[in-house]
Amino acid sequence: MTAPVRRDRLPLALTRGDPSGIGPELALKAWLATHIDETAPPFLYAGELDHLADLARRLRLDVPVEPADAKCAAGLFPSALPVLPSGASVSGLPGAPDVKDAAGTIASIETCVGLVRAGHARAVVTNPIAKEILYRAGFAHPGHTEFLAELSHRVFHVDARPVMLLWSPDLAVVPATIHVPLAEVPARLTHALLVETGLVVARDFRQRFGIERPRLAFTGLNPHAGEGGAMGREEIEIVSPALAELRAAGIDASGPYPADTLFHRSARRGYDVVVAMYHDQALIPIKTIAFDSAVNVTLGLPFVRTSPDHGTAFDIAGKGVADPQSLVAALRLADRLASPCPAG
Amino acid sequence: MTAPVRRDRLPLALTRGDPSGIGPELALKAWLATHIDETAPPFLYAGELDHLADLARRLRLDVPVEPADAKCAAGLFPSALPVLPSGASVSGLPGAPDVKDAAGTIASIETCVGLVRAGHARAVVTNPIAKEILYRAGFAHPGHTEFLAELSHRVFHVDARPVMLLWSPDLAVVPATIHVPLAEVPARLTHALLVETGLVVARDFRQRFGIERPRLAFTGLNPHAGEGGAMGREEIEIVSPALAELRAAGIDASGPYPADTLFHRSARRGYDVVVAMYHDQALIPIKTIAFDSAVNVTLGLPFVRTSPDHGTAFDIAGKGVADPQSLVAALRLADRLASPCPAG
Repeated sequence: MTAPVRRDRLPLALTRGDPSGIGPELALKAWLATHIDETAPPFLYAGELDHLADLARRLRLDVPVEPADAKCAAGLFPSALPVLPSGASVSGLPGAPDVKDAAGTIASIETCVGLVRAGHARAVVTNPIAKEILYRAGFAHPGHTEFLAELSHRVFHVDARPVMLLWSPDLAVVPATIHVPLAEVPARLTHALLVETGLVVARDFRQRFGIERPRLAFTGLNPHAGEGGAMGREEIEIVSPALAELRAAGIDASGPYPADTLFHRSARRGYDVVVAMYHDQALIPIKTIAFDSAVNVTLGLPFVRTSPDHGTAFDIAGKGVADPQSLVAALRLADRLASPCPAG
Repeated sequence: MTAPVRRDRLPLALTRGDPSGIGPELALKAWLATHIDETAPPFLYAGELDHLADLARRLRLDVPVEPADAKCAAGLFPSALPVLPSGASVSGLPGAPDVKDAAGTIASIETCVGLVRAGHARAVVTNPIAKEILYRAGFAHPGHTEFLAELSHRVFHVDARPVMLLWSPDLAVVPATIHVPLAEVPARLTHALLVETGLVVARDFRQRFGIERPRLAFTGLNPHAGEGGAMGREEIEIVSPALAELRAAGIDASGPYPADTLFHRSARRGYDVVVAMYHDQALIPIKTIAFDSAVNVTLGLPFVRTSPDHGTAFDIAGKGVADPQSLVAALRLADRLASPCPAG
């Protein structure tokens, strides 16, 4: 799918994430898995050089770690993992996060977004953060996504409308509502939410994924999509009118479909992306069929951002057992979605 | 998994279902697919001989259809599809159901349950019915399942507690609530419902599936199973206390687990059956991975009942394109679940 990436191209910017989680280990392993693969994108890690080098030694991973700026990162990548040094140090230990590292976690994200804004990196790929650690340091955003929206405003001077996409080669899903209790989902589903979500998804699938006329399939909220109103009326009152508005705007939006019969292999040929009504309706099918390789993508930003679809995994941090598959998939997808040269 | 079935054994009893749906065609095709396979169970179709023979001719399916009683059905099965004749006739046409056939649809179910009760058949396998047609004929039950519970009482003198199971070789799931609007799910989830469901599932997995100590995994209701109360409290207030009660009763019941990470291949090794909180949470994963071969099983009855996991499919009835895979799977599973000789 992806064309070979020339080594003289701009790198992707990879954030450090919480240094006590598996992010730094995954960066080392992702480099090992991709540095001699010419189809894989070079990346630049924004974090602490010594911390990463120590970790490589401790985990006996044969990864040379070199300081670099964005300009020389791609050229260096085949022989060493390029690190844009933070100048700070790390306090937490593997599996034992320290609130003193929160500032560095945030700074790494800001650095990466700034690199893309300046035209020095092609896209942002984020390692997992621990929200509760950041909250204790005064972080005012509910999570990564909201912070990236704020950076869109601050750095790109663009009002972002972030939309979460879970992507795998076999299935792409967008939950219209995300981290809300199930009982609150019906009240959160509004006409405006579904229309705005559909507009962002359609635009980014056209612009980022290069699909001329993306096919969006919407689920219903209720069993059997309400069965004509017999089991809930949200399909009639909310979802269908939103779909009509999207179609009037020229978007190939269909549904609402019963969610249970929408995700098997032959059904998946009928669309490019599913907009589901809530968290589990979207995440159950993709995690069932692509557990280790799904990628989290934030649509609706002025830059490309992908992320592995897992957390900091403090329980296994420092043990050398973390699986870089999802991060590697996130790097490859960011490479595909980012334009060859950023707008700058 | 199943031992070879001797031809002198008792047959399964297969209902006709709505004669204008795909049931009769599936019966013909299931016979074609299994009659020379000694590991497949013989079955007896309770319906109209002429209607079935005409259909075979029209669809050019080479299926000899012979009148039979339960005693000779298994012996006849390798050479012809045995039919226990209803004595009635069929009014509806393929794809055009007729309310005049409702009585025959109901009678076929009663006949099959009676055959099992009398010790003449091993289990009931039901073809799809059209509830709206039955309602117009005065059928007083919401669906198949409730009618079978009524027959349990009337014919077996047993108070049944029917529980819906969707089964495939890779995954078995029970939705604790089924055909209710999503907005009503939280209120329907009670301690008693979850405990009763767990007790029936554990008992039938032991008695019918032969699993000595079945492992039941329960989902949470909310995203990430509520994340410790941050996204909903049903896990803390309802699911966990129910699990504690089940464990106190000696049942291996675990959870509540986040539903999205419970269904991938390696997670599935950790349990025998998942009890999910609502329809789509249970049906999305099984229909995603086993769309054509999932079987619907009613647990909690005094007899074994399985069914293909699809409806009457009036839109394709009579066209010869219906896929018998799910009915064949339902017949094979009924064979496995039924004791070699019914209690009589």
